[in-house]
Amino acid sequence: MSKPNAYTAKAYSATSSSSPLAPDTIQRREPTDRDVQIEILFCGVCHSDLHFVRNEWSGVMPAVYPAVPGHEIVGRVTKVGSKVTKMKPGDLAGVGCMVGADLECPMCKVGNEQFSPTGIWTYGATEPVIGGPTYGGYSESIVVDEHFALRIPANLPLAAVAPLLCAGITTYSPLRHWKVGPGKKVGIVGIGGLGHLGVKFARAFGAQVVVFTTSPGKKDDALRLGAHEVVISHEADEMAKHAGSFDFILDAVSAQHDIDAYLRLLVPDGTLTLLGAPEKPIVLSAFSLLMGRKNLAGSPIGSIAETQEMLDFCGTHNITADVEVIPIQKINEAYERLLKGDVRYRFAIDMASLKSE
Amino acid sequence: MSKPNAYTAKAYSATSSSSPLAPDTIQRREPTDRDVQIEILFCGVCHSDLHFVRNEWSGVMPAVYPAVPGHEIVGRVTKVGSKVTKMKPGDLAGVGCMVGADLECPMCKVGNEQFSPTGIWTYGATEPVIGGPTYGGYSESIVVDEHFALRIPANLPLAAVAPLLCAGITTYSPLRHWKVGPGKKVGIVGIGGLGHLGVKFARAFGAQVVVFTTSPGKKDDALRLGAHEVVISHEADEMAKHAGSFDFILDAVSAQHDIDAYLRLLVPDGTLTLLGAPEKPIVLSAFSLLMGRKNLAGSPIGSIAETQEMLDFCGTHNITADVEVIPIQKINEAYERLLKGDVRYRFAIDMASLKSE
Repeated sequence: MSKPNAYTAKAYSATSSSSPLAPDTIQRREPTDRDVQIEILFCGVCHSDLHFVRNEWSGVMPAVYPAVPGHEIVGRVTKVGSKVTKMKPGDLAGVGCMVGADLECPMCKVGNEQFSPTGIWTYGATEPVIGGPTYGGYSESIVVDEHFALRIPANLPLAAVAPLLCAGITTYSPLRHWKVGPGKKVGIVGIGGLGHLGVKFARAFGAQVVVFTTSPGKKDDALRLGAHEVVISHEADEMAKHAGSFDFILDAVSAQHDIDAYLRLLVPDGTLTLLGAPEKPIVLSAFSLLMGRKNLAGSPIGSIAETQEMLDFCGTHNITADVEVIPIQKINEAYERLLKGDVRYRFAIDMASLKSE
Repeated sequence: MSKPNAYTAKAYSATSSSSPLAPDTIQRREPTDRDVQIEILFCGVCHSDLHFVRNEWSGVMPAVYPAVPGHEIVGRVTKVGSKVTKMKPGDLAGVGCMVGADLECPMCKVGNEQFSPTGIWTYGATEPVIGGPTYGGYSESIVVDEHFALRIPANLPLAAVAPLLCAGITTYSPLRHWKVGPGKKVGIVGIGGLGHLGVKFARAFGAQVVVFTTSPGKKDDALRLGAHEVVISHEADEMAKHAGSFDFILDAVSAQHDIDAYLRLLVPDGTLTLLGAPEKPIVLSAFSLLMGRKNLAGSPIGSIAETQEMLDFCGTHNITADVEVIPIQKINEAYERLLKGDVRYRFAIDMASLKSE
């Protein structure tokens, strides 16, 4: 039975931190005046999805069950509220990591909804209209305030657009924020779901792009993605050649690794920005920062305006993720492959497969 | 016997990592065309001096014995080379952490000698004219290229000026670099040789200044130095009140401490800058940086031009260090007191005491 002002939608959920994902039904709010309802066509599979359903980030983002992950959502608008001006039924639309915020706090007012204390994450937050948890994109539809619905360029393959909504903006935003462009030497550490998009953006922005990977087998692929040079990061001689030469390094590795080794590669005033969150603490020497006034930063997603800018940029420059499309029924297997790094470079779920459940 | 082009000067040196400092004689080069010879009147005692003579920073700055530390030097010019234009005999002059660099490399050309790979540290580096190690300011005189000699405002008490040459520029530079000023809320962590000057500068720059200390006994002193508010850092409730509110935090603590606790206090895009180098590695959570796109940086000294700017600023605003003046004969005792934090807030050696050796 539906809650008032709600409807029932098919989804895949986990019911505990040790349960596989399985078919379920969830409640979505009926679109309000300012809402857009989207039929989900593809949903990317982000490592965060896995951390969330397994409650591995309990300290910062505790799981709420049933847990429906997915925040790389693309689809088609099926209904809009009476006050919606941004979209109309039939339009393509995307949803990323956020589905709400008050839009009135100082952070929202300067266009940084992603830093707002009132922000509502796409999954695991509290649904503001009908209560219960917010549910992500492993589902047949979603309803969001129009502010959080993104326009999707018509010229791009949809499955490969989906990962742009999280992996895309997560790499685009720091490269823009730290002003990567012509004349800058930029390192991308780790070629996975995030890193492979980082390479594409850094190259498109006109920088000199060097990829760091532990996998010699990814060298050709890194060059194909746009790298000018590839360094095997456990080869000390290769690393030493680049000492003190990088303006910016984007570190997309979640596993624990040697941060000092990369800080040594920065020019004075250079910045190393982390995108991944290793489960174990980061360990580094203060001297690595002191010598050369270097910066270690972290970067989450980007703002809604910046996400739209990124999608438009992708439309203009024909940038999408490299995806392997799977049916939702393969999601648990995909998680196991994700843990082994066995995907080039992002899974995208074809949500048509959910219709048969 | 003197080396060619050298003269003999009295000094205090350590002959091994376990030796106390004791009277010695050293060789200084005779001033060349571009050199300034300075009779040292006061020399501040920096924690780095102690790390150096005890070879505690062997990985980044190995000791060379005999080791003569001291890089907070003020005195009076006694001789200048024929091409020197900056100073004349009788002028006050200061020397900080650097005594040379090629002045031609890209870093020097943009006025950042402190990042030059050709930089020559005041002690423990290689003397470029007569060879052997460079010797610091625990000595009766020093000879440096005029570029590295600083003009000293005439209106300030000299003993209290000495610590400005390292502790002063080390706190002034990051506060300027990260644009601390009116409308900014700034934290200073740790009230010691560095921190007490950080408070004075941050206040003089017009910021809202909050001091963090583990010592309730330093509260009144922190307010006297210019803090608007003092937080006892182990009181979780007091810390929590300031969550997400600081634009910039200057962390002057060398002992191991909880970096995450301070990162939590930053606004989005805020920066925590370390000045001290704990002997143990720094440990932090990546989430502390990711959430709010925060920055952890380190800062060493500043450029020569910025050091001069700092000294001029101090002359205009009557800023000096709080010093306890000691004779050189008390230096070993002073090191022990330094290790216990038993000085408010910097020792300055009256080098006249060396004449009796």
